[in-house]
Amino acid sequence: MIRFTNDYSEGCHPSILEAMAATNTEGNPGYSLDPHSEHAHALIRQAIGRPDADVHFLVGGTQTNTTAIAAFLRPYEAVIAASSGHICVHETGAIEASGHKCIACPAESGKLTPAAIRAACAAHTDEHMVRPRMIYVSQTTEIGTLYSLAELEALRSVCDELGLLFYLDGARLGSGLAAGDATLPDLGRLCDAFYIGGTKNGALFGEALVLLKDELKPCFRYNIKQRGGMLAKGWLLGIQFEQLFRGSRYVELAAHANEMALKLKEGIAALGYSFLCDSVTNQQFPILPDRVVEALKGDFGFEFNCKPDEAHTCIRLVTSWATPQENVDAFLKALADLS
Amino acid sequence: MIRFTNDYSEGCHPSILEAMAATNTEGNPGYSLDPHSEHAHALIRQAIGRPDADVHFLVGGTQTNTTAIAAFLRPYEAVIAASSGHICVHETGAIEASGHKCIACPAESGKLTPAAIRAACAAHTDEHMVRPRMIYVSQTTEIGTLYSLAELEALRSVCDELGLLFYLDGARLGSGLAAGDATLPDLGRLCDAFYIGGTKNGALFGEALVLLKDELKPCFRYNIKQRGGMLAKGWLLGIQFEQLFRGSRYVELAAHANEMALKLKEGIAALGYSFLCDSVTNQQFPILPDRVVEALKGDFGFEFNCKPDEAHTCIRLVTSWATPQENVDAFLKALADLS
Amino acid sequence: MIRFTNDYSEGCHPSILEAMAATNTEGNPGYSLDPHSEHAHALIRQAIGRPDADVHFLVGGTQTNTTAIAAFLRPYEAVIAASSGHICVHETGAIEASGHKCIACPAESGKLTPAAIRAACAAHTDEHMVRPRMIYVSQTTEIGTLYSLAELEALRSVCDELGLLFYLDGARLGSGLAAGDATLPDLGRLCDAFYIGGTKNGALFGEALVLLKDELKPCFRYNIKQRGGMLAKGWLLGIQFEQLFRGSRYVELAAHANEMALKLKEGIAALGYSFLCDSVTNQQFPILPDRVVEALKGDFGFEFNCKPDEAHTCIRLVTSWATPQENVDAFLKALADLS
Amino acid sequence: MIRFTNDYSEGCHPSILEAMAATNTEGNPGYSLDPHSEHAHALIRQAIGRPDADVHFLVGGTQTNTTAIAAFLRPYEAVIAASSGHICVHETGAIEASGHKCIACPAESGKLTPAAIRAACAAHTDEHMVRPRMIYVSQTTEIGTLYSLAELEALRSVCDELGLLFYLDGARLGSGLAAGDATLPDLGRLCDAFYIGGTKNGALFGEALVLLKDELKPCFRYNIKQRGGMLAKGWLLGIQFEQLFRGSRYVELAAHANEMALKLKEGIAALGYSFLCDSVTNQQFPILPDRVVEALKGDFGFEFNCKPDEAHTCIRLVTSWATPQENVDAFLKALADLS
Repeated sequence: MIRFTNDYSEGCHPSILEAMAATNTEGNPGYSLDPHSEHAHALIRQAIGRPDADVHFLVGGTQTNTTAIAAFLRPYEAVIAASSGHICVHETGAIEASGHKCIACPAESGKLTPAAIRAACAAHTDEHMVRPRMIYVSQTTEIGTLYSLAELEALRSVCDELGLLFYLDGARLGSGLAAGDATLPDLGRLCDAFYIGGTKNGALFGEALVLLKDELKPCFRYNIKQRGGMLAKGWLLGIQFEQLFRGSRYVELAAHANEMALKLKEGIAALGYSFLCDSVTNQQFPILPDRVVEALKGDFGFEFNCKPDEAHTCIRLVTSWATPQENVDAFLKALADLS
Repeated sequence: MIRFTNDYSEGCHPSILEAMAATNTEGNPGYSLDPHSEHAHALIRQAIGRPDADVHFLVGGTQTNTTAIAAFLRPYEAVIAASSGHICVHETGAIEASGHKCIACPAESGKLTPAAIRAACAAHTDEHMVRPRMIYVSQTTEIGTLYSLAELEALRSVCDELGLLFYLDGARLGSGLAAGDATLPDLGRLCDAFYIGGTKNGALFGEALVLLKDELKPCFRYNIKQRGGMLAKGWLLGIQFEQLFRGSRYVELAAHANEMALKLKEGIAALGYSFLCDSVTNQQFPILPDRVVEALKGDFGFEFNCKPDEAHTCIRLVTSWATPQENVDAFLKALADLS
Repeated sequence: MIRFTNDYSEGCHPSILEAMAATNTEGNPGYSLDPHSEHAHALIRQAIGRPDADVHFLVGGTQTNTTAIAAFLRPYEAVIAASSGHICVHETGAIEASGHKCIACPAESGKLTPAAIRAACAAHTDEHMVRPRMIYVSQTTEIGTLYSLAELEALRSVCDELGLLFYLDGARLGSGLAAGDATLPDLGRLCDAFYIGGTKNGALFGEALVLLKDELKPCFRYNIKQRGGMLAKGWLLGIQFEQLFRGSRYVELAAHANEMALKLKEGIAALGYSFLCDSVTNQQFPILPDRVVEALKGDFGFEFNCKPDEAHTCIRLVTSWATPQENVDAFLKALADLS
Repeated sequence: MIRFTNDYSEGCHPSILEAMAATNTEGNPGYSLDPHSEHAHALIRQAIGRPDADVHFLVGGTQTNTTAIAAFLRPYEAVIAASSGHICVHETGAIEASGHKCIACPAESGKLTPAAIRAACAAHTDEHMVRPRMIYVSQTTEIGTLYSLAELEALRSVCDELGLLFYLDGARLGSGLAAGDATLPDLGRLCDAFYIGGTKNGALFGEALVLLKDELKPCFRYNIKQRGGMLAKGWLLGIQFEQLFRGSRYVELAAHANEMALKLKEGIAALGYSFLCDSVTNQQFPILPDRVVEALKGDFGFEFNCKPDEAHTCIRLVTSWATPQENVDAFLKALADLS
């Protein structure tokens, strides 16, 4: 079975296992109050060009989103997101379970737009409705699309105009950095908070939440602990981000994933197939005849996305830092044989 | 100022104030454990033909909806509603504040349809998404439309098919009973729980929540107390529903409101104006030239609904048990003068 | 049956019913945005000597406490209260249901002390524990005792020292004002927020929440709505507080209740019985032989408090603005006959 | 620095890192739906003698406690625990943040007793108070004491008598199994749910939650996801528990920790010092002169527990599966030199 199922099917970059083995018995304080975590915080502050940022490591994405959003909002405040946003669909109502409404907006190619944000705010006029207070965007989006720097700057403007916080979910931020024109310093400049995903880009687990706006910083560790996200052996997170932010490794790992995805894309397109959207990142959504999809299932792992018509199926192919070229070649060969 | 602003601008039916005065010093146990409340429970059980029903009195609608929905659902379960449903829009995220997602569906004339329910359930497939567990419908709806008996029966069928609870918000149930073909015994037969609105039909305040499905009944008073809905002088609720359910008063009061609304509707239509939807209940949504709306504002109270085009405004006119015929006449005369 | 069961067994002061009848058809905007509510707000601001205060009317005590505390605290913050405090015991976990821990402290005569507050704060040292952020005290307390002005000033000092908010539950504030040396202007000067109880002092229902600290004021109506506490016919609350704050009626009603309670106390003491605590307010806790308690049950209503020893029972006797002298006399005569 | 600070200062048993390296690129389905997790589930079911048990892996203890307790309780229900219980003190109000009150009871040597449970239930009599529904005990307790099999059976009896669920926090269950007479099959027979701690007994992270009572099982994975506890690379948990439950390794690792602790205990006692309590597990609480404690701080890591008197300090010494004998010897030598 060759898996294009997701970008979290393998363990981690070998350097991480090596670092874990090397530090296994060194003895460290718990709860991310250790030198590895501090060092990794510093590396991330440097990479985003914000020495004043607070960095917190959490284990997973839903946990990070919920902890951040619940910490940022007052009880009656709500978060605006694209209707396809991860928090709207794939977190089992975690945001609502923390007491807050997600205002789901129509998305354009999986992206939240200034127009949608303005419409959402205009529709919430008084105390009989929730009060929109922040926006949530995913870079890259759930369908592999990408916000350009100009788009992120436009979101920042509308947030300034409407008094909204700007939060970015970077579960696949590596892929976005490698494929797009917005850099980590751009995010450090534009966002009020965002997270840098480790799980889907070479770590065993771990997300680095970056708090930029001062009012979001006080007592944040209380929120992490209360929501069950404070890892006892927190240095394990520090060690992983030390490795991911060694040189330009974080972007390089993602660049490989993107490269493999683009080879898939080119090969599939060359066979005459179309796509759900034009993705330049590590998720590709080709539309294939049902018969072909059925035949591929035996040897390849992938997820069903949707049925654009009676005879075709859109599937999701995901590559990762660990995807070998030969897997891509095998898929394209099998597809060619079936076409 | 003649108000068509809403159906809760006046106090209560005179019989209620008389009953309050008559019982003011009689001394009663607190928290609705008094003879008036028990009597009123019995009257309601009788009216719906379900001697096994549990009846609980609460003060207001948002409180009733939140208490019921939060009591019925497990933490990961969600409620399906029309996107125009009161809980989706006008309760300041009260349902989300209790931890639950409202799955907002496209509505047809303000109504939730079996097709929309099926689509919502089909879209929620596994533990990464909330689990749809109940439907919420308003009778009458937020735009004055009405579920027919056949429509309610169809909703019951889809609930049975999909394992969903059927909950009905009866803030304006009186108007629905007076205008439609579904009776209180029909609701007693079809719903798992519903409430009978007092606030908008002659009471000072108060809603009667009816629990029909046995598994929803145990310990329900704990939920009322925890959510701040247990009125110390609970007999005040009992007294009001004793008066509302004296003979057929509950439907008669609403029938008057409907009659006044239909006179408005006929008069407005006779002047050549159209409506947002075809309402046969106590809320009417005429579409008028902006100039006319502006001119009416001086003497009449009403709420803005929407702007269907550049030159027109849709307003909401609401009548109540207390609306005098002369107010209707005055409005129609003013409108005629402006037309 | 002569009731000393509680102070909410009767309806309301007759002036309130008269005012309701007089205004029944006048037509008012909803949700406490009406002239009666505004007038009552002004009367209360004047009575406490704080023209800058925000006043909000809610229906009941548990609702008021939960709405206020949940609005004031960040998710990881906790409220400190005496272990006998209403929020710790008799609100079905409403504060916890809003997400916050109540730190229960040992009480002295039902009162929270500066020493207990300091100990609670000293025991909560880091992010693995909740962060104490406010104190909750009841005036009068759940066992009828009273904070003196000096005690309230000491509480203010410890709050200033430790960065805590000072919140006072005034469900029985009338009784406290009539019996003690702390005035409404004192509360206006010392508290960050408090509420003035209507339900137990002459109203049908209603509590007036007073917000004094500026940071607690913004968007407060959102909290009221979200927690189901925004009464549609909000002017009913305004009308009641207009009547209660007409002249010195609020304190006079409570003074009568206290006077009746003190007559009970004196009469019971004259028969040689002792009390759980020395109460000068409208709740008295005499300790009587079990035999006597049993015999009194036939004609008098009261609540069981505790069993101080095998042969004795402590009962709670509560008087109200409506308690007639003859009820007190009847009780004392019956007790004398049994003694 | 020689650390007796806690039992989570080191990484993991070497076999775990080896297994991670060996499986790093094998490719696995996410979210614990992989063969390693399934195998580890089977090993645990076998070890507890309950083939019908549901096993779920979570990352940490607070997360496991909150997920379980919030899933088991209805909104108005509460959990009974010793006042020193982890959920009452050291989880930043996580249980309250999920909406539930912890009823804190006086503990005997850190243990919850049937008498305390009965008293807690007797004190909660009606819907104005929370409804006690489960008990929480820690094996071993927060101060290193241990429930005997007879004590656990007595707790089961009182739970049966009062209709309570029996939940056991096994963060340090290894130490308890190695030191006491209650076995895993005993827990499988007596508890409704419990968890087997990995973090403090040889794993990098991970706790195995065991659900025994059928009504607690349905849809449990929804709760894990909603509370942010579903690890994307869930097989990492499976791999770790495969290693911990290989033969009798789980108990052996803990037995070593206990042995080191008992050597500390004997050595300290031989020098004439006393202890806070008589612990036979991996946490020891010696009471030492302040001067000695100060002097030890330079070379040894440990936590402050309390000040039993002016001149003495009680410290906590914790050993782990990784504590070398030489660390114990070094501490005892240093203590002897200071004595």
